[in-house]
Amino acid sequence: MVSNKTVLFDSIPNHEPVDSLKIVTQQFDLDRQLAPGEAILKVEMLSLDPYMRSRMRDPSIETYVPPFTLGEPIDNGGVVIVLKSNNAHFKVDRKYYAGFTLPFSEYALVTEASNAFYTDITDAELPNETLIGACGLPGKTAYYSYKQLVRGKAGEKIFISAASGGIGQMLCQLCKMDGLKVLAAVGSDEKVDYCEKTLGVDRAFNYKTSDTRKELAAFGCDIFYDNVGGKMLEDVLDQINVYGRVICCGQIATYNSGAEAYGIKNTFQIVAKRLSFQGFITFELIPQKPFHESKYNTIEEEFMATIPSMIKEGKLDVKNHVYNGIEATSQAFLDLLRGDKHGKTVIQL
Amino acid sequence: MVSNKTVLFDSIPNHEPVDSLKIVTQQFDLDRQLAPGEAILKVEMLSLDPYMRSRMRDPSIETYVPPFTLGEPIDNGGVVIVLKSNNAHFKVDRKYYAGFTLPFSEYALVTEASNAFYTDITDAELPNETLIGACGLPGKTAYYSYKQLVRGKAGEKIFISAASGGIGQMLCQLCKMDGLKVLAAVGSDEKVDYCEKTLGVDRAFNYKTSDTRKELAAFGCDIFYDNVGGKMLEDVLDQINVYGRVICCGQIATYNSGAEAYGIKNTFQIVAKRLSFQGFITFELIPQKPFHESKYNTIEEEFMATIPSMIKEGKLDVKNHVYNGIEATSQAFLDLLRGDKHGKTVIQL
Ligand SMILES: NC(=O)c1ccc[n+]([C@@H]2O[C@H](COP(=O)([O-])OP(=O)(O)OC[C@H]3O[C@@H](n4cnc5c(N)ncnc54)[C@H](OP(=O)(O)O)[C@@H]3O)[C@@H](O)[C@H]2O)c1
Ligand SMILES: NC(=O)c1ccc[n+]([C@@H]2O[C@H](COP(=O)([O-])OP(=O)(O)OC[C@H]3O[C@@H](n4cnc5c(N)ncnc54)[C@H](OP(=O)(O)O)[C@@H]3O)[C@@H](O)[C@H]2O)c1
Repeated sequence: MVSNKTVLFDSIPNHEPVDSLKIVTQQFDLDRQLAPGEAILKVEMLSLDPYMRSRMRDPSIETYVPPFTLGEPIDNGGVVIVLKSNNAHFKVDRKYYAGFTLPFSEYALVTEASNAFYTDITDAELPNETLIGACGLPGKTAYYSYKQLVRGKAGEKIFISAASGGIGQMLCQLCKMDGLKVLAAVGSDEKVDYCEKTLGVDRAFNYKTSDTRKELAAFGCDIFYDNVGGKMLEDVLDQINVYGRVICCGQIATYNSGAEAYGIKNTFQIVAKRLSFQGFITFELIPQKPFHESKYNTIEEEFMATIPSMIKEGKLDVKNHVYNGIEATSQAFLDLLRGDKHGKTVIQL
Repeated sequence: MVSNKTVLFDSIPNHEPVDSLKIVTQQFDLDRQLAPGEAILKVEMLSLDPYMRSRMRDPSIETYVPPFTLGEPIDNGGVVIVLKSNNAHFKVDRKYYAGFTLPFSEYALVTEASNAFYTDITDAELPNETLIGACGLPGKTAYYSYKQLVRGKAGEKIFISAASGGIGQMLCQLCKMDGLKVLAAVGSDEKVDYCEKTLGVDRAFNYKTSDTRKELAAFGCDIFYDNVGGKMLEDVLDQINVYGRVICCGQIATYNSGAEAYGIKNTFQIVAKRLSFQGFITFELIPQKPFHESKYNTIEEEFMATIPSMIKEGKLDVKNHVYNGIEATSQAFLDLLRGDKHGKTVIQL
């Protein structure tokens, strides 16, 4: 028996999930007899992503992700080492990336139902946090949506919110490679510096101290890649160019606000400016063929064949915020929703 | 000299345009010498359309339509007879349909600048109100946007707001011809009857006395054709199916509300349900080739070759609300914005 710290879903939050996660120490039997299909994993790193806020809800509300279960561990993506296995998919001592379903605990027992979510990354030659971030959900979200939906052309002006986050940082760089003009909104001066000096955007501003409308009016905007929603989306509708396109990735500004969400009053601009909006969910883009000419069969194949090597060659910058110890989970998640972190959020166990 | 009653733009409204239009009686010289390009028109009928509310604004605000000028006549579409002409485009005693730019007056003097807006309809064999409505702006708006943007498939469920209005009545019928299932929202029980019995929609309801969310939940909704915006749009976002499409034609519920417009809080549904939105302006669709297979070069050609004859053959119903006398303009426009009329609004002179 070893002790196994686990993060349980403890209460449904109305606003900020301040008391929603509870750390408990359970016992885990490393010597248990494994049934066919079972494997024991040691968790090395866990990923925190904004969409987990939607899972902290009353289970009677239906939406695009299943709810967390009260009293049960929360789960998400991460990196694990296989300690014991009675499942051909999981090889002992090898390292796996889990896209989803990994419980927030130090050790985990999985069955064959998990196979589809775990990929062997032993030979990936990249740090865990990069495999979770730039090569994981946020990196893929940026890449797939950029190639399949944004389809930017050189010279087009794109406004990116939450631009230094996991998705934003990758997207800014993809846009610059294709010659787009990038305006980036971020929540601190340090992030402004990062976007301009490291990511190479044309202009970044701190939306807490600068006027978003004035920035948009001065820079121009053909495309809005929206990670934030709320008031910022309203500002964009008044400033975006005629025929503007809005790619709706997320609305992090609204996740904690419940019934008091900011109400957007100027949706008539969609008619007056002939705007289009497109919402998407990353995993639905995975199996799609690349929209552009490509030698790859799916957009995921193309991503795997190009992005990790570009990162290794230093052609793409990657910024992660690493918290230490599973106990940091609750605070790290609050920081993520508040913007009090810089880059992709991961927990090092 | 004859007296020439004229409707002037008298004050910029904050909410309902109750005092914005003023009738004055001016003098008009029917015997004047016409300069080259001039013609004298007698106005037979005038069209009132919701977008005219956007023109009653502070001219410093830029949007998709030019503002009315304080102290000058308002203008829009209508039907005229040519009394005198020194312009080859305008032939004496013939009847013309004006799409735009016809001043609200009993007589009008036009120059060559007007030629592009006037079409000879002497041989059209349809009543003026039908030429203005079903064969004019609202009919074309419904047809062009249905064929180019809605692109409905048999069995798809479409929700249409302001369904008995100029656009709605045509759209309901086009959808039924293609086998779509139509849910119609209207503002009175009489209009409910009209939609179900005359237009043949699958279900209509009075949104003032029935719960829009419950109606949508019971009927289902793949496509929302939005003429109204505001609270009804918010209701739809919560009820529309995954991958739903919103065709943004207008937001009449917001035109009078100014800064107190209803704020839409649930735009995150665009992401969660992977929705798309498309705004459009009718005149930009005119020159487009039909999206579907068609022997016509433009969608306008196709419309003119099919819709007027279908109306003559009784295959399409047309409902207009005819006001008498130019003095009725102000009240008729208030009625239009309040929904206190049934069908396309026109003024018979
Ligand atoms: N559609 C999909 O399939 C999909 C997939 C993954 C993620 N997403 C969405 O994409 C968005 C970004 O995700 P991510 O992984 O890049 O997140 P992330 O790295 O955690 O970045 C989130 C950032 O959002 C910013 N933020 C937080 N509250 C804000 C507010 N009230 N106003 C403005 N900015 C705020 C903060 O940065 P600042 O300091 O700059 O404010 C924060 O660092 C989220 O909305 C997420 O839900 C969608
Ligand atoms: N995009 C374009 O190019 C274009 C072109 C033309 C028109 N439009 C827009 O299309 C829409 C319909 O135009 P139309 O010519 O068909 O107008 P219409 O025949 O005058 O119909 C307007 C109808 O809207 C309904 N309405 C008014 N206030 C409402 C409210 N607060 N909530 C719900 N319904 C309300 C009323 O019917 P009920 O009794 O049923 O409520 C009214 O009869 C308008 O928004 C207009 O601005 C757009």
